[in-house]
Amino acid sequence: MPSVDAAGEFETIRRLLAPLAHPEWGRGLLDDVAVLPSRAGYDLVLTKDSIVEGVHFLAEDPMDTVARKLLRVSLSDLAAKGAEPFGYMLGCFWSTRCGWPEREAFAAGLKHDQTEFGVALMGGDTVNTPGPASFSLTMLGWMPRGRTVGRDGARPGDVVLVTGAIGDGYLGLQAARGMLSLEPERLLVLTDHYRAPVPRMAFAPHIRDLATAAIDVSDGLVADLGHVAAASGVALEVDLGTLPISAAGMAWLDGRVDPQDARIQLATGGDDYEIVFTARAHDEAELHRAAERQHLRLTAIGRVVAGTGVTVRWAENIVDVRRPGWTHD
Amino acid sequence: MPSVDAAGEFETIRRLLAPLAHPEWGRGLLDDVAVLPSRAGYDLVLTKDSIVEGVHFLAEDPMDTVARKLLRVSLSDLAAKGAEPFGYMLGCFWSTRCGWPEREAFAAGLKHDQTEFGVALMGGDTVNTPGPASFSLTMLGWMPRGRTVGRDGARPGDVVLVTGAIGDGYLGLQAARGMLSLEPERLLVLTDHYRAPVPRMAFAPHIRDLATAAIDVSDGLVADLGHVAAASGVALEVDLGTLPISAAGMAWLDGRVDPQDARIQLATGGDDYEIVFTARAHDEAELHRAAERQHLRLTAIGRVVAGTGVTVRWAENIVDVRRPGWTHD
Repeated sequence: MPSVDAAGEFETIRRLLAPLAHPEWGRGLLDDVAVLPSRAGYDLVLTKDSIVEGVHFLAEDPMDTVARKLLRVSLSDLAAKGAEPFGYMLGCFWSTRCGWPEREAFAAGLKHDQTEFGVALMGGDTVNTPGPASFSLTMLGWMPRGRTVGRDGARPGDVVLVTGAIGDGYLGLQAARGMLSLEPERLLVLTDHYRAPVPRMAFAPHIRDLATAAIDVSDGLVADLGHVAAASGVALEVDLGTLPISAAGMAWLDGRVDPQDARIQLATGGDDYEIVFTARAHDEAELHRAAERQHLRLTAIGRVVAGTGVTVRWAENIVDVRRPGWTHD
Repeated sequence: MPSVDAAGEFETIRRLLAPLAHPEWGRGLLDDVAVLPSRAGYDLVLTKDSIVEGVHFLAEDPMDTVARKLLRVSLSDLAAKGAEPFGYMLGCFWSTRCGWPEREAFAAGLKHDQTEFGVALMGGDTVNTPGPASFSLTMLGWMPRGRTVGRDGARPGDVVLVTGAIGDGYLGLQAARGMLSLEPERLLVLTDHYRAPVPRMAFAPHIRDLATAAIDVSDGLVADLGHVAAASGVALEVDLGTLPISAAGMAWLDGRVDPQDARIQLATGGDDYEIVFTARAHDEAELHRAAERQHLRLTAIGRVVAGTGVTVRWAENIVDVRRPGWTHD
């Protein structure tokens, strides 16, 4: 494509992005391509995420956290497969509001999280758009050959487990929009979680070794479990009473009139970026020990049975979940 | 990210994109990732292109050709490196005008060119945007280890060669906008070239074996030669008198008052997707024979000398090219 150079495509690449390039494989972003040597005994795992201002992030979100969230949601996809990320290709669609300060903030966010997660920029493209700022990222990771965990391996008798807490993404979006009334420090924790969720990279090796099926919670816990149930050809039963909820989430729950409806909101809100997965029942104790060593909360929330779909229970009753996941309609 | 489902993200993937998935590595687009086995002795070459309606393509361009052009400009990047493409990751930002007919046309364009070029969809993401329709594509290809042709290998004494004709992309854009007065069949040829340029895949093995530096002509011949000169630390001299021009381009030239200015327009207009490259002088005859076997036009347009930058000559004079390439400002 011809280059866009209103605010300086070449300058953006040279000043802001080239310093983030992978030292060997990114070719200093001076070429049109990245070149990656094969790694014997490993598969390359690729995932792509695309985000739009006003749809997937808020116009008032700081650009450094927009960049960090973009990286983190892709890292989370790889963690849920058990893969080890190393680099990414980035497409930036800069809107008219993206001047140098915004671009610099975006690059600073990338730099921060590159260091934190050990990934580097491999290449990409930067263009201007008359529409909202948008970004598209392809994350790359390694996986020992043939070991990638799919959505399709859950079997009757398996347990359903989830890392961390569920619902902070949903509450965080409301906090960022100023729609929640909670103590200021709780609002801050939730907003931070919405803007920079924590992908569970350290737990990825245990997913790889012991999960029978796994997915990261992005659409909403119930919706994502539905993807696993459909792909595996099994039914999943989960109990809202076991749903792991953060301290901020508990504070929010305290103010709800209908506790069942409130828990359904948390279990369907999405944007959590925890890993929900299935495992053989006899591996559950080992998984709990592994999580404990990482000081990571891990909660058994249900089991796999024969059948189809996701059954949600609360206080012995089966709950009708009309809208299992978040949609932007 | 939470899913966008106004016009049906899942439906778009299931009905339109899943049939395009790579039979092994795309996992039926039913997972969040693609998984690609390593290929011993080969490097993986990656390139990314991003396009925006109203900037890189016209609102009136048919969606099937938008898809085909998106694939082709990325294929062209790999051809200029000497690489062999096999698959791609796709990010779609659908605008409000992208209903089912537009999405179906887009998928039909992908399908057409997947067959033509032997590539398959590996994975991706599809979201809705309130802005203009936009797309981002990461193309993947194989290259025998360490053989990728860069921009930095041109040496004094090398010749400068270019495939095909230069200027049809520039004229094609004007034709598509209804700004050219030429015979209808010429306008059609030019518009077709603008909407579906022909990446020089068949010539890629010769680039890999004999080019010292190469780039595809996207920004404009002079600008792209400038990238090679800068990366290689040499000067390039080209002669506008040797510029290969198509029959339609010659017809357009006939109507120009200032032939020098007209040729500069062709040499700086961009969007050609031909390969311009440097090679050792003693390999030139072999390259011409290889091109002739493919019935591909190949033209020597200049030479590499010590120095910096690009010198453009016309009828013994040095021409001052103020704007070496196309920008969207």
